Amino acid sequence: MSRSKKAKAGPPEFRRSPCPVTSTLDIFGDKWTLIVVRDLLLGKRLYREFSESPEGIPTNILADRLKRLEAEGIVTREPYQQRPLRYAYQLTEKGEDLLAVLAEIARWANHYIPGTAKPPAVLVQRLAKVRKRRGW
Amino acid sequence: MSRSKKAKAGPPEFRRSPCPVTSTLDIFGDKWTLIVVRDLLLGKRLYREFSESPEGIPTNILADRLKRLEAEGIVTREPYQQRPLRYAYQLTEKGEDLLAVLAEIARWANHYIPGTAKPPAVLVQRLAKVRKRRGW
Repeated sequence: MSRSKKAKAGPPEFRRSPCPVTSTLDIFGDKWTLIVVRDLLLGKRLYREFSESPEGIPTNILADRLKRLEAEGIVTREPYQQRPLRYAYQLTEKGEDLLAVLAEIARWANHYIPGTAKPPAVLVQRLAKVRKRRGW
Repeated sequence: MSRSKKAKAGPPEFRRSPCPVTSTLDIFGDKWTLIVVRDLLLGKRLYREFSESPEGIPTNILADRLKRLEAEGIVTREPYQQRPLRYAYQLTEKGEDLLAVLAEIARWANHYIPGTAKPPAVLVQRLAKVRKRRGW
Protein backbone atom coordinates (compact mmCIF):
# COMPACT_ATOMS: atom_id res chain seq x y z
CA MET A 1 0.00 0.00 0.00
CA SER A 2 1.36 3.44 -0.91
CA ARG A 3 2.15 6.00 1.74
CA SER A 4 -0.52 8.45 0.55
CA LYS A 5 -3.13 5.71 0.75
CA LYS A 6 -2.10 4.96 4.31
CA ALA A 7 -2.41 8.61 5.23
CA LYS A 8 -6.01 8.50 4.04
CA ALA A 9 -6.71 5.80 6.62
CA GLY A 10 -8.67 3.53 4.30
CA PRO A 11 -10.76 0.61 5.47
CA PRO A 12 -9.27 -1.33 8.38
CA GLU A 13 -7.00 -4.18 7.44
CA PHE A 14 -7.63 -7.55 9.00
CA ARG A 15 -5.09 -10.22 9.64
CA ARG A 16 -7.34 -12.97 8.32
CA SER A 17 -10.88 -11.68 7.68
CA PRO A 18 -13.36 -9.06 8.97
CA CYS A 19 -15.33 -11.81 10.73
CA PRO A 20 -15.80 -10.68 14.36
CA VAL A 21 -15.03 -14.18 15.65
CA THR A 22 -11.82 -14.40 13.63
CA SER A 23 -10.71 -10.91 14.67
CA THR A 24 -11.28 -11.81 18.32
CA LEU A 25 -9.35 -15.08 17.95
CA ASP A 26 -6.46 -13.05 16.50
CA ILE A 27 -6.25 -11.52 20.00
CA PHE A 28 -7.45 -14.31 22.32
CA GLY A 29 -7.00 -17.47 20.27
CA ASP A 30 -4.74 -19.37 22.63
CA LYS A 31 -4.90 -21.32 25.88
CA TRP A 32 -3.80 -18.52 28.21
CA THR A 33 -4.92 -15.00 27.32
CA LEU A 34 -8.50 -15.30 28.59
CA ILE A 35 -7.20 -16.87 31.82
CA VAL A 36 -5.21 -13.69 32.46
CA VAL A 37 -8.33 -11.64 31.67
CA ARG A 38 -10.29 -13.83 34.11
CA ASP A 39 -7.70 -13.14 36.82
CA LEU A 40 -7.89 -9.40 36.17
CA LEU A 41 -11.69 -9.56 36.40
CA LEU A 42 -11.26 -11.33 39.73
CA GLY A 43 -9.20 -8.38 40.97
CA LYS A 44 -5.69 -9.73 40.56
CA ARG A 45 -3.27 -7.00 39.58
CA LEU A 46 0.26 -8.25 40.14
CA TYR A 47 2.53 -10.49 38.14
CA ARG A 48 2.95 -12.74 41.16
CA GLU A 49 -0.81 -13.08 41.59
CA PHE A 50 -1.29 -14.22 37.99
CA SER A 51 1.56 -16.71 38.39
CA GLU A 52 -0.05 -18.22 41.47
CA SER A 53 -3.29 -19.16 39.71
CA PRO A 54 -3.95 -22.91 39.63
CA GLU A 55 -3.24 -23.21 35.90
CA GLY A 56 0.41 -22.31 36.50
CA ILE A 57 0.99 -19.99 33.57
CA PRO A 58 4.66 -20.06 32.51
CA THR A 59 6.43 -16.74 33.22
CA ASN A 60 7.44 -16.07 29.63
CA ILE A 61 3.88 -16.64 28.39
CA LEU A 62 2.48 -14.36 31.10
CA ALA A 63 4.90 -11.56 30.15
CA ASP A 64 4.03 -11.94 26.47
CA ARG A 65 0.26 -11.97 27.05
CA LEU A 66 0.31 -8.91 29.32
CA LYS A 67 2.30 -7.04 26.68
CA ARG A 68 -0.13 -8.02 23.95
CA LEU A 69 -3.18 -7.14 26.07
CA GLU A 70 -1.65 -3.72 26.70
CA ALA A 71 -0.97 -3.25 22.97
CA GLU A 72 -4.62 -4.11 22.25
CA GLY A 73 -5.87 -1.53 24.76
CA ILE A 74 -7.33 -4.22 27.01
CA VAL A 75 -5.08 -3.63 30.02
CA THR A 76 -3.11 -0.69 31.35
CA ARG A 77 -0.19 -0.89 33.74
CA GLU A 78 1.36 1.49 36.22
CA PRO A 79 4.39 1.17 38.47
CA TYR A 80 3.59 0.25 42.06
CA GLN A 81 7.18 -0.22 43.19
CA GLN A 82 10.43 1.45 42.09
CA ARG A 83 13.33 -0.81 43.18
CA PRO A 84 13.01 -3.15 41.49
CA LEU A 85 10.49 -1.58 39.13
CA ARG A 86 7.24 -3.50 39.25
CA TYR A 87 3.90 -2.88 37.56
CA ALA A 88 0.30 -3.36 38.56
CA TYR A 89 -2.16 -4.21 35.78
CA GLN A 90 -5.82 -3.44 35.35
CA LEU A 91 -8.48 -3.79 32.72
CA THR A 92 -9.64 -0.90 30.56
CA GLU A 93 -13.33 -0.58 29.74
CA LYS A 94 -12.66 -2.65 26.62
CA GLY A 95 -11.22 -5.33 28.88
CA GLU A 96 -13.97 -5.11 31.52
CA ASP A 97 -16.55 -5.67 28.80
CA LEU A 98 -15.05 -9.09 28.11
CA LEU A 99 -16.87 -10.16 31.26
CA ALA A 100 -20.00 -10.76 29.16
CA VAL A 101 -18.02 -13.07 26.86
CA LEU A 102 -16.51 -14.97 29.79
CA ALA A 103 -19.93 -15.26 31.43
CA GLU A 104 -21.36 -16.87 28.31
CA ILE A 105 -18.40 -19.26 28.11
CA ALA A 106 -18.94 -20.17 31.78
CA ARG A 107 -22.63 -20.78 31.18
CA TRP A 108 -21.87 -23.13 28.30
CA ALA A 109 -19.14 -24.92 30.27
CA ASN A 110 -21.28 -25.30 33.41
CA HIS A 111 -23.97 -26.90 31.27
CA TYR A 112 -21.82 -29.19 29.13
CA ILE A 113 -18.59 -29.91 31.02
CA PRO A 114 -19.43 -31.84 34.19
CA GLY A 115 -17.87 -30.58 37.39
CA THR A 116 -16.80 -27.14 36.18
CA ALA A 117 -16.94 -24.48 38.89
CA LYS A 118 -19.63 -21.81 38.97
CA PRO A 119 -18.38 -18.25 38.45
CA PRO A 120 -17.90 -16.33 41.73
CA ALA A 121 -20.91 -14.25 42.81
CA VAL A 122 -18.88 -11.04 42.58
CA LEU A 123 -18.53 -11.52 38.82
CA VAL A 124 -22.19 -12.35 38.35
CA GLN A 125 -23.06 -9.08 40.08
CA ARG A 126 -20.64 -7.08 37.96
CA LEU A 127 -22.03 -8.56 34.77
CA ALA A 128 -25.24 -6.57 35.24
CA LYS A 129 -23.18 -3.38 35.41
CA VAL A 130 -21.25 -4.23 32.24
CA ARG A 131 -24.49 -4.97 30.40
CA LYS A 132 -25.97 -1.69 31.58
CA ARG A 133 -22.90 0.29 30.51
CA ARG A 134 -22.95 -1.33 27.09
CA GLY A 135 -26.64 -0.55 26.69
CA TRP A 136 -27.11 -3.67 24.58
CA MET B 1 -5.34 -43.42 40.74
CA SER B 2 -6.23 -47.07 41.48
CA ARG B 3 -8.45 -49.04 39.16
CA SER B 4 -11.21 -49.47 41.75
CA LYS B 5 -11.32 -45.74 42.29
CA LYS B 6 -11.71 -45.19 38.56
CA ALA B 7 -14.58 -47.66 38.45
CA LYS B 8 -16.36 -45.57 41.07
CA ALA B 9 -16.23 -42.61 38.68
CA GLY B 10 -14.89 -40.13 41.19
CA PRO B 11 -14.90 -36.39 40.64
CA PRO B 12 -14.04 -35.31 37.11
CA GLU B 13 -10.39 -34.69 36.39
CA PHE B 14 -9.42 -31.46 34.71
CA ARG B 15 -6.43 -30.87 32.52
CA ARG B 16 -5.56 -27.59 34.24
CA SER B 17 -8.32 -26.51 36.63
CA PRO B 18 -12.11 -26.77 37.12
CA CYS B 19 -12.48 -23.13 36.01
CA PRO B 20 -15.15 -23.09 33.28
CA VAL B 21 -13.09 -20.65 31.19
CA THR B 22 -9.99 -22.82 31.42
CA SER B 23 -11.92 -26.00 30.61
CA THR B 24 -13.40 -24.33 27.54
CA LEU B 25 -9.98 -23.08 26.42
CA ASP B 26 -8.73 -26.66 26.69
CA ILE B 27 -11.15 -27.36 23.81
CA PHE B 28 -11.26 -24.08 21.85
CA GLY B 29 -8.07 -22.28 22.89
CA ASP B 30 -6.55 -21.83 19.46
CA LYS B 31 -6.96 -19.65 16.39
CA TRP B 32 -9.05 -22.08 14.32
CA THR B 33 -11.53 -24.23 16.22
CA LEU B 34 -14.21 -21.58 16.71
CA ILE B 35 -13.91 -20.61 13.04
CA VAL B 36 -14.89 -24.18 12.10
CA VAL B 37 -17.78 -23.95 14.60
CA ARG B 38 -18.81 -20.64 12.99
CA ASP B 39 -18.84 -22.30 9.56
CA LEU B 40 -20.96 -25.17 10.88
CA LEU B 41 -23.39 -22.67 12.41
CA LEU B 42 -23.57 -20.98 8.99
CA GLY B 43 -24.66 -24.30 7.47
CA LYS B 44 -21.37 -25.48 5.97
CA ARG B 45 -21.06 -29.27 6.19
CA LEU B 46 -18.30 -30.39 3.85
CA TYR B 47 -14.55 -30.41 4.15
CA ARG B 48 -14.29 -28.44 0.92
CA GLU B 49 -16.68 -25.77 2.24
CA PHE B 50 -14.62 -25.23 5.40
CA SER B 51 -11.44 -25.01 3.30
CA GLU B 52 -12.96 -22.31 1.11
CA SER B 53 -13.65 -19.89 3.98
CA PRO B 54 -11.72 -16.63 3.69
CA GLU B 55 -9.36 -17.49 6.56
CA GLY B 56 -7.88 -20.33 4.49
CA ILE B 57 -7.58 -22.97 7.19
CA PRO B 58 -4.70 -25.37 6.42
CA THR B 59 -5.95 -28.87 5.55
CA ASN B 60 -4.07 -30.65 8.33
CA ILE B 61 -5.41 -28.22 10.95
CA LEU B 62 -8.96 -28.63 9.64
CA ALA B 63 -8.71 -32.44 9.83
CA ASP B 64 -7.33 -32.25 13.37
CA ARG B 65 -9.98 -29.79 14.61
CA LEU B 66 -12.88 -31.79 13.14
CA LYS B 67 -11.55 -34.91 14.83
CA ARG B 68 -11.23 -33.12 18.16
CA LEU B 69 -14.69 -31.55 17.88
CA GLU B 70 -16.11 -35.00 17.21
CA ALA B 71 -14.27 -36.44 20.23
CA GLU B 72 -15.74 -33.66 22.38
CA GLY B 73 -19.28 -34.43 21.23
CA ILE B 74 -19.58 -31.08 19.48
CA VAL B 75 -19.91 -32.39 15.93
CA THR B 76 -21.07 -35.65 14.37
CA ARG B 77 -20.21 -36.86 10.91
CA GLU B 78 -21.82 -39.23 8.45
CA PRO B 79 -20.72 -40.46 5.04
CA TYR B 80 -22.34 -38.63 2.13
CA GLN B 81 -20.30 -40.30 -0.61
CA GLN B 82 -18.75 -43.78 -0.84
CA ARG B 83 -15.98 -43.65 -3.51
CA PRO B 84 -13.97 -41.94 -2.35
CA LEU B 85 -15.44 -42.00 1.16
CA ARG B 86 -16.40 -38.49 2.22
CA TYR B 87 -18.12 -37.20 5.34
CA ALA B 88 -20.58 -34.43 6.06
CA TYR B 89 -20.34 -32.76 9.47
CA GLN B 90 -22.95 -31.17 11.66
CA LEU B 91 -23.21 -29.71 15.12
CA THR B 92 -24.75 -31.57 18.04
CA GLU B 93 -26.93 -29.68 20.51
CA LYS B 94 -23.77 -29.05 22.57
CA GLY B 95 -22.24 -27.49 19.46
CA GLU B 96 -25.34 -25.51 18.46
CA ASP B 97 -25.38 -23.96 21.92
CA LEU B 98 -22.00 -22.38 21.23
CA LEU B 99 -23.95 -19.88 19.15
CA ALA B 100 -24.61 -17.85 22.31
CA VAL B 101 -20.86 -17.70 23.00
CA LEU B 102 -20.07 -16.67 19.42
CA ALA B 103 -22.83 -14.06 19.53
CA GLU B 104 -21.31 -12.47 22.63
CA ILE B 105 -17.86 -12.50 21.01
CA ALA B 106 -19.33 -10.84 17.91
CA ARG B 107 -21.02 -8.19 20.03
CA TRP B 108 -17.76 -7.35 21.77
CA ALA B 109 -15.82 -7.33 18.48
CA ASN B 110 -18.39 -5.18 16.67
CA HIS B 111 -18.14 -2.66 19.50
CA TYR B 112 -14.36 -2.61 19.98
CA ILE B 113 -12.72 -3.71 16.72
CA PRO B 114 -13.54 -1.16 14.00
CA GLY B 115 -14.79 -2.55 10.73
CA THR B 116 -15.68 -6.05 11.87
CA ALA B 117 -18.66 -7.53 10.05
CA LYS B 118 -22.07 -7.91 11.67
CA PRO B 119 -23.22 -11.51 12.18
CA PRO B 120 -25.62 -12.71 9.44
CA ALA B 121 -29.32 -12.25 10.24
CA VAL B 122 -29.91 -16.01 10.06
CA LEU B 123 -27.66 -16.51 13.10
CA VAL B 124 -29.26 -13.69 15.05
CA GLN B 125 -32.63 -15.36 14.51
CA ARG B 126 -31.33 -18.76 15.58
CA LEU B 127 -29.85 -17.32 18.74
CA ALA B 128 -33.35 -16.77 20.14
CA LYS B 129 -34.08 -20.48 19.61
CA VAL B 130 -30.87 -21.55 21.34
CA ARG B 131 -31.64 -19.30 24.31
CA LYS B 132 -35.16 -20.71 24.52
CA ARG B 133 -33.91 -24.31 24.40
CA ARG B 134 -31.39 -23.60 27.13
CA GLY B 135 -34.05 -22.00 29.29
CA TRP B 136 -31.46 -19.60 30.74
